[in-house]
Amino acid sequence: MKKLSIIKIGGNVIDSHEKLNAFLKDFAEIDGHKILIHGGGKIATELAEKMGVEQQMVNGRRITDAETLDVVTMVYAGLINKNLVAKLQTYGQNYIGVSGVDLNLIKTKKRAIKDYDFGFVGDITTDSISTDKLNLFIKKNITPIFCAITHNGHGQLLNTNADTLASAIAVAMADFYEVNLYFCFEKKGVLSNSDDEDSVIENITPPIFEELKNQNIINKGMIPKLENAFSAINSGVGNVFILQEKYLLECINQNQNHGTRVSN
Amino acid sequence: MKKLSIIKIGGNVIDSHEKLNAFLKDFAEIDGHKILIHGGGKIATELAEKMGVEQQMVNGRRITDAETLDVVTMVYAGLINKNLVAKLQTYGQNYIGVSGVDLNLIKTKKRAIKDYDFGFVGDITTDSISTDKLNLFIKKNITPIFCAITHNGHGQLLNTNADTLASAIAVAMADFYEVNLYFCFEKKGVLSNSDDEDSVIENITPPIFEELKNQNIINKGMIPKLENAFSAINSGVGNVFILQEKYLLECINQNQNHGTRVSN
Repeated sequence: MKKLSIIKIGGNVIDSHEKLNAFLKDFAEIDGHKILIHGGGKIATELAEKMGVEQQMVNGRRITDAETLDVVTMVYAGLINKNLVAKLQTYGQNYIGVSGVDLNLIKTKKRAIKDYDFGFVGDITTDSISTDKLNLFIKKNITPIFCAITHNGHGQLLNTNADTLASAIAVAMADFYEVNLYFCFEKKGVLSNSDDEDSVIENITPPIFEELKNQNIINKGMIPKLENAFSAINSGVGNVFILQEKYLLECINQNQNHGTRVSN
Repeated sequence: MKKLSIIKIGGNVIDSHEKLNAFLKDFAEIDGHKILIHGGGKIATELAEKMGVEQQMVNGRRITDAETLDVVTMVYAGLINKNLVAKLQTYGQNYIGVSGVDLNLIKTKKRAIKDYDFGFVGDITTDSISTDKLNLFIKKNITPIFCAITHNGHGQLLNTNADTLASAIAVAMADFYEVNLYFCFEKKGVLSNSDDEDSVIENITPPIFEELKNQNIINKGMIPKLENAFSAINSGVGNVFILQEKYLLECINQNQNHGTRVSN
């Protein structure tokens, strides 16, 4: 099977012009098939503030009311996605910016109200990813650049967690390719000591994960990230790396070890 | 050659939920290949106001400074484009929302500064439209939904007039299809008496156009629209219709005469 690299970037890359430009140059140089999934960073929060749309967060996740859905659709699918693609097009090859509504690529299910009403949030299901449509691009060496705006198939846009989306795309594409999944992140990897940038845990297995959680070394935001990673590996993804974006190119093109590798 | 209908809608359709929903239902029912190009309506102006971004207009055209470019990118490529596509996906078939950066579909040239600096405005050139990439979709019965955000190929997004873009796409695709171009519009057609909604001029030829301009019957916004129409016809497009969106389906599927037909 051919290789396919699925890469997710978040706010720490998007919010810095320098980091973003360096990342995009590297991304363009990645060998083989690839897909980028981007989050939104601070831009959505800043736009909401300018527009007077109050933002509510629960456990680090945004509550997406109707006005906030408009904000994230504008920022993720419009401003960030189109600027990323415009910059990537300067490096040759060919790129297409997509959301989940385009070609029906990603259909999700509005999250049921339990303890909280997260609003217009779309959760991935087992048949969310239209791999046949995604392969239209990959087979023609067109690189899809995904924002995490999806839809329910009944006309409603939904805001989806970009980590979860990256993981779900990796799993779905593992039927056709040898898939590796890369979460780019502000630290060098998952740290055993948050005060020591060099205390990268090189390999995390399920028992190590349990121990790190019990010791409270792994924090709130990292738990769903690692859960996504394990879920991906259990469903056919080869390797999941959590690393700094500046080491991505070496990690992929030269097989160098960087960051944290999640494995069974 | 197979038929291809190129349809442009503007603010009068986009700004009304009822009109927009009715239009999208009709659009989905149009027989044969089709492409939609949408403008932005009042939403961009309203967002700019909320964000405190001042809007300057010259001869009915927006001056696109850096902040305004962000606003129109968010509104056209994000909010409007993705909501249109989400609604269209409920009618079956398959749709993809695109800007000119995606797949390098539309490369434009930043307008030179003459009497005014229009800012980040992209003008169409003879090789702006990547017909081979556009045909990837059309040949698979995937309908492209275009916003009029384009790029210069060097990383810069540009704001392009949606009428001009529709016309340029029609001309470029006339090499491969029997193309008709439809400008949807708030009036029943081009009127000879602006106070009489039923005074539709059924056919406009170049001499009639000259006469109507001399008599000041055709107003500022209509002149570039008709110039685009003539330019399209002179370059291989079959017919150009200026009509109300509610008559579009009858006009295309049943060959009924509606609105103003522009011809040589």
